[in-house]
Amino acid sequence: MITLASDFGIAYPAAMKGVVLSRSDARLVDVAHDLPRQDVRAAAFWLRETLPYFPPAVHLVVVDPGVGTDRRAIALRVGDHVFVGPDNGVVRPPARRIAERTDGDVRVEAYEIRVSDPASTTFHGRDVFAPAAADAHEADVDALAALDRFEPVGTDSLADLVFPTPDVTEDGSQTTGEVLVVDDFGNCITNVPGEFVEGRESVAVNGESVPVGHTFETVSRGERLVTVGSHGNVECDVNHGRGDEAFGLSPGETVTLHID
Amino acid sequence: MITLASDFGIAYPAAMKGVVLSRSDARLVDVAHDLPRQDVRAAAFWLRETLPYFPPAVHLVVVDPGVGTDRRAIALRVGDHVFVGPDNGVVRPPARRIAERTDGDVRVEAYEIRVSDPASTTFHGRDVFAPAAADAHEADVDALAALDRFEPVGTDSLADLVFPTPDVTEDGSQTTGEVLVVDDFGNCITNVPGEFVEGRESVAVNGESVPVGHTFETVSRGERLVTVGSHGNVECDVNHGRGDEAFGLSPGETVTLHID
Amino acid sequence: MITLASDFGIAYPAAMKGVVLSRSDARLVDVAHDLPRQDVRAAAFWLRETLPYFPPAVHLVVVDPGVGTDRRAIALRVGDHVFVGPDNGVVRPPARRIAERTDGDVRVEAYEIRVSDPASTTFHGRDVFAPAAADAHEADVDALAALDRFEPVGTDSLADLVFPTPDVTEDGSQTTGEVLVVDDFGNCITNVPGEFVEGRESVAVNGESVPVGHTFETVSRGERLVTVGSHGNVECDVNHGRGDEAFGLSPGETVTLHID
Repeated sequence: MITLASDFGIAYPAAMKGVVLSRSDARLVDVAHDLPRQDVRAAAFWLRETLPYFPPAVHLVVVDPGVGTDRRAIALRVGDHVFVGPDNGVVRPPARRIAERTDGDVRVEAYEIRVSDPASTTFHGRDVFAPAAADAHEADVDALAALDRFEPVGTDSLADLVFPTPDVTEDGSQTTGEVLVVDDFGNCITNVPGEFVEGRESVAVNGESVPVGHTFETVSRGERLVTVGSHGNVECDVNHGRGDEAFGLSPGETVTLHID
Repeated sequence: MITLASDFGIAYPAAMKGVVLSRSDARLVDVAHDLPRQDVRAAAFWLRETLPYFPPAVHLVVVDPGVGTDRRAIALRVGDHVFVGPDNGVVRPPARRIAERTDGDVRVEAYEIRVSDPASTTFHGRDVFAPAAADAHEADVDALAALDRFEPVGTDSLADLVFPTPDVTEDGSQTTGEVLVVDDFGNCITNVPGEFVEGRESVAVNGESVPVGHTFETVSRGERLVTVGSHGNVECDVNHGRGDEAFGLSPGETVTLHID
Repeated sequence: MITLASDFGIAYPAAMKGVVLSRSDARLVDVAHDLPRQDVRAAAFWLRETLPYFPPAVHLVVVDPGVGTDRRAIALRVGDHVFVGPDNGVVRPPARRIAERTDGDVRVEAYEIRVSDPASTTFHGRDVFAPAAADAHEADVDALAALDRFEPVGTDSLADLVFPTPDVTEDGSQTTGEVLVVDDFGNCITNVPGEFVEGRESVAVNGESVPVGHTFETVSRGERLVTVGSHGNVECDVNHGRGDEAFGLSPGETVTLHID
């Protein structure tokens, strides 16, 4: 199985599919091709929340604002999963999540994918990553080093991407985090663990009291609420509306939660 | 085969796919993941127009504004098809259409899917419906009752959703219906049967005469027309333009058609 | 394998998938269903840039503004590939590209698909092209003529679509082309071959000097550049921005490039 994720929008992903299917009989599963454009952090978040649910697979991930620069093309093996994509950190959070969920030791290996043909400097998804993913799929996961153009490198040499952790005051009454991503619904997903609001009826968000609900329907339509999303973090939402607009929040902005 | 339909937009559907593929080797077919947000009626319409064309399959349908409330999770078997989704009526129109198209008797059974783990209150697509769909796929369609968490219930106990039928004046010269959905093209699909306009050259829509055409090209670009869509109902459209804007119509609004 | 491409947006493509899967066990691969609406030329461009990467397949292509008129439904065989779609030229550029890439002789055959049932005049994707694609997939590629409703016609009888070629001044210092398509990123893809800017540091675009870069990162964020895309043509782009807005260009507009 090969999963495909990118920020390519229409048409471009199909060229990757064609290349993969020309080299491999893998089952293809689309994860998303409308990931936020050139937004490595948001992509890493969504992939962390989705790819770990998959059975062992090659995960072809192309959110790659640095294409054509000297950023490396890499493969990262974590147990029976193999990530293929740019060395910009985007695959690290999903890879880490898979490693955490695996009982016992999990074998982690990193490879640089050598780019031999300099012809295409703008579409490594088609010309570099897709063939590498197909080749990784056809190979034994224990024998990736035998593949042409796969060169073992230290895992520590890979670019990393770590989501920030919120600050909490000593008395535990206030936490200062940030919006990690805004989803399609306008829900503002923060980095604050859900535990901070659990069991509470309301919380102050940047100074204004907002009800805490375990479902959208605990408030009227159009009303704001704080909830804990499926990812376990605090979200600032609106029932049947857009939280980003109602709270005036966007990715990267600070959110201070204070116990009411 | 498992079909997947939702209003989840990016990324969230992939978590469902991962869960399904971890429990089942089913062929997955994406129906749509950009169904109108939290719009149960529009989703039911689109699914009625698409799912009956499929061969026997498990249909995983998650348009679920009531997630986290006490609405039930259900499975509805109709012949060799099994629908899995929330008990809000969304699966009833496609299920009814499949039953109508099946010659002779069709076996209809309903199940409540018990939600054992209260952990996730916001993403039943991933945590409740996806595993249930995978389990239903792996089971014999005649043995769903043997599945863990599948509890037989009366079909009559399920929430229903019936599209409204238009009124017709006694002399048959006028019908008052409504816009069921507006499609991506801006075409306003009404609940008025196509027969009302068939063979006519024009019809008055909310008082204004509009040509009836069997294709968009029967009027100039940018001009309004009334046509009969692939679903058999009257549509208010614009050739190379948006009918919703030109007619000032949106879903749920009244449309009066009068024979010119 | 059957690939699917259309401008149908949500839901409608699923009816085609259902029809295909009811008649065939083919592997389905989505190419794109959000091709620019009713834009035959843009669709032809994207399909030329993607379909030739696929292994032999039936390519179901439905961008069909003339549906319901007397434009024919056709199948075009090129080697082991078969295109099924409307006779409006949309399949010709990808078919030609596949023929060019095939060594030696490639067998090219054209068929009219007879439309027997006049019931649906608006959704030939579901009612005409999908069953034809499924039937073509199940048949031997050398025996398409034996299929019901496939009638051999001369290839020359098909509508064609040829992208314009740019003019070049005698001294080679200036070329006048046009924007073929604008992609999702806002990149303006022209018909000017990349060779015109290769090795240059800058070029005048409609009179204004713009740097030539082999990657977006050669200019600052928000700055304009001219680059050569993965398709081999000159693009007018903005690093982390929209080239169409910055250059004031849209599809079909003239672009004059002058060597600085």
